[in-house]
Amino acid sequence: MDPRLSLNQITTKSWSLPEAVAGCAEAGVGWIGLWRDKVAETGVDEAARLLKEHGVRVSSLCRGGFFTGVTPEGSPVDGVAQTREAIDEAAALGTDVLVLVVGGIAGNDLAASRQRVADAVGELAPYAGERGVRLGLEPLHPMQCAERSVLSTVDQALAIAVEHPAEQVGVIVDEFHVWWDPRIEESIAAAAGRIAGFHVCDVLVPLPDPLLGRALPGDGPIDHRRLRAAVEAAGYSGPIEVEVFNADLWARPGQDVLAETITAFERYVA
Amino acid sequence: MDPRLSLNQITTKSWSLPEAVAGCAEAGVGWIGLWRDKVAETGVDEAARLLKEHGVRVSSLCRGGFFTGVTPEGSPVDGVAQTREAIDEAAALGTDVLVLVVGGIAGNDLAASRQRVADAVGELAPYAGERGVRLGLEPLHPMQCAERSVLSTVDQALAIAVEHPAEQVGVIVDEFHVWWDPRIEESIAAAAGRIAGFHVCDVLVPLPDPLLGRALPGDGPIDHRRLRAAVEAAGYSGPIEVEVFNADLWARPGQDVLAETITAFERYVA
Repeated sequence: MDPRLSLNQITTKSWSLPEAVAGCAEAGVGWIGLWRDKVAETGVDEAARLLKEHGVRVSSLCRGGFFTGVTPEGSPVDGVAQTREAIDEAAALGTDVLVLVVGGIAGNDLAASRQRVADAVGELAPYAGERGVRLGLEPLHPMQCAERSVLSTVDQALAIAVEHPAEQVGVIVDEFHVWWDPRIEESIAAAAGRIAGFHVCDVLVPLPDPLLGRALPGDGPIDHRRLRAAVEAAGYSGPIEVEVFNADLWARPGQDVLAETITAFERYVA
Repeated sequence: MDPRLSLNQITTKSWSLPEAVAGCAEAGVGWIGLWRDKVAETGVDEAARLLKEHGVRVSSLCRGGFFTGVTPEGSPVDGVAQTREAIDEAAALGTDVLVLVVGGIAGNDLAASRQRVADAVGELAPYAGERGVRLGLEPLHPMQCAERSVLSTVDQALAIAVEHPAEQVGVIVDEFHVWWDPRIEESIAAAAGRIAGFHVCDVLVPLPDPLLGRALPGDGPIDHRRLRAAVEAAGYSGPIEVEVFNADLWARPGQDVLAETITAFERYVA
């Protein structure tokens, strides 16, 4: 098995954190991407203990962000305060990457919303750096611009990241969000030394839904080897997370989903 | 009323072409954007006669394209042949703009699909020019990349357009498709002299569906005056189409929808 495969635990959503960690260990998957809500169910200390016991490392923690002050549901949120907590949590879990979903448009002002994101990153970057955590700015697909992320492209995320030391702020390349971008290969090349994570999945055609339209690699039109080659040419050699939001997969036993994830990864990504 | 307002007839989908033309004339709207399926129901000659009788001009005809050889449903299609017919139809209807939806990804090869689009435009541009019709390359939202359009940005459309005389190939700026683009203002400025149409609407938040998530201007986060100013600074002074795909609007009488369209345009765009 490719030792760089990491299971983003959203892919096996029916599993609790202890089940997902044990499942990875049993299947020989050495990395896992964690979500804060799942960590909270188990508790940070117990999660850290389980990870150590099973010899599974954390590729990233999802997620901080929401710096524009509103949740996807439109409620107010203090994204900076929550992200400080998430930085501490990432450090406690032994991962050096915190994924950021920066937040959607506030007050119908796209330029001002983007400025709030840049300001928040400036405020948090030194805090993250002191704790050995790198902020991973993840551009989300433009269909999520209004609700979740006013950062839509790798270029845009990189423009914010380069204002800070490389060990404090990087960018996450997630295939679902950026595969369509006509500039993606140049953008990834420009992000050399700044790539903090590479997430793979496929896109369902026809796209059924803005959020759940993902599939395992191979079940859609994304050219995974081309994007992996671009990311590696830019110097990224870290874990590769398989991150799939898909209601059908979520309804199935975690063990079966992980087995299929491994097969899909070997066949289309490795 | 702003004399540049044009009703794209998809907005009043419940109306036939004769109803839409008469409705525009009655409401004092001097422009209409037509769709080929609606034109076919009435017949091209009868449609042209009705337009003349009512003094309504055609801002554009939707649509040619599908040059990658597959329909959104995945059936084979000869997009070049169909677009030749659409060019003739546009000329017969007295419009100088044919909107192109270029087609989605074929054979899971994004680069090759984009090349097929560029090749088809090269083949058709002189034919369109001889008939006084300009091909309007419309980038569609990235969520429609796989099924409908491997052109996702104004930059990308412009790169193809500039290979041909400006009177033969231009680009269409549709707010729904490009509002999120961090480069949109520079892209529009770069497209000076190449803008063949400006389409306005809003985006629903949360986005319910990849196709029908549109609303009348003012019912979402798009800053219409900012985009209109950018398009005008780039020299575009033609009709502005209101084009809304929205199941609730479609279920309502055309007359009511047109009245609301006029109000929304005056309030948020004019």
